[in-house]
Amino acid sequence: MDCKNALDEAGGDMEKAIDILRKKGTAKAAKRADKIAAEGKIFTYVHGEGKIAVMLELNSETDFVAKNEKFLKLGSDVAMHIAAMSPRYVSRAEVPAAEVEREKDVYREQMKNEKKPAEIIEKIIEGKLNKYYSEICVLEQVYIKDEEKTIEQLLTIATGEIGEKISLRRFARYEVGEGLEKKSNDFVKEVEEQLAK
Amino acid sequence: MDCKNALDEAGGDMEKAIDILRKKGTAKAAKRADKIAAEGKIFTYVHGEGKIAVMLELNSETDFVAKNEKFLKLGSDVAMHIAAMSPRYVSRAEVPAAEVEREKDVYREQMKNEKKPAEIIEKIIEGKLNKYYSEICVLEQVYIKDEEKTIEQLLTIATGEIGEKISLRRFARYEVGEGLEKKSNDFVKEVEEQLAK
Repeated sequence: MDCKNALDEAGGDMEKAIDILRKKGTAKAAKRADKIAAEGKIFTYVHGEGKIAVMLELNSETDFVAKNEKFLKLGSDVAMHIAAMSPRYVSRAEVPAAEVEREKDVYREQMKNEKKPAEIIEKIIEGKLNKYYSEICVLEQVYIKDEEKTIEQLLTIATGEIGEKISLRRFARYEVGEGLEKKSNDFVKEVEEQLAK
Repeated sequence: MDCKNALDEAGGDMEKAIDILRKKGTAKAAKRADKIAAEGKIFTYVHGEGKIAVMLELNSETDFVAKNEKFLKLGSDVAMHIAAMSPRYVSRAEVPAAEVEREKDVYREQMKNEKKPAEIIEKIIEGKLNKYYSEICVLEQVYIKDEEKTIEQLLTIATGEIGEKISLRRFARYEVGEGLEKKSNDFVKEVEEQLAK
């Protein structure tokens, strides 16, 4: 009932409703929503004395399967693959629209002097974009230990063999010294140095 | 010179300049900017048979120090602390402004019936906010194994002992089944269930 009242009070706005619940001290209701049925295991892989490391969450439907030998092998295989292949996203659904647009813009610019019909150009761009996804999204990457399969196919095969939906929810890959914030700073510095010449 | 030309062409816009460089096929210049002087090590800590895991990057100035015993102990201590205390950010500088505003809004609402002068209310809010930061930012958290120190103080002490700037650049903490996307979905579902009654 707290939820319904809060939602009415917020005029149907879910975000506001959560705040109202918190304000009323019934934040517990929101906390309960943290619980999710997904089981599985967090895998880590450390490479080169800690110069590169990967952490990922592989989910199964039951905790029982999370101890299955095939599941454990799959998790460490995928972690090692990520360490080697440096994907940035799990799937293309995670790639920000702005990044996709920017990428397309680069392709268009590269082809602006080609005398091809517009629809052919668009098809080529689509092809280049698919290639781009297959480089940055781990599910679309070719598996480093078996180039006949993508990581997605590897998961599908495991799902079949284990008999439970197996999914890669998220991952992080750290490499000592790499850093996105510094990247642009350095680029700015580099340009400033060039300008100073 | 490529950088300068690209920047001129982009009318001084750094983002556009990077795209221009890529379009010209001189993306290498941008890639070089990836290199950063920071040394250190990536630490991982796995808890409860992989139900929780933490990965963090601890930086030193030289690679030599990254093999120092004190540095190695510090990294694993902080990783364990993060597993236990679930911070969400490294420092308050990382907390999104919208989250801070929302938090303040909750505090204001909680105190709206108190008959205190506005400046006192603001001071109390400031105090509550500092407490909030000390709960969600790892550097401000009290170290779980020594409540006399914050994690930031732990790093400062290590910096003094080791004789090189030691800093915690980033971390990730995964717990099986937790998931931000699902959180709001579940809340929506919960509210829908309530409404259906």
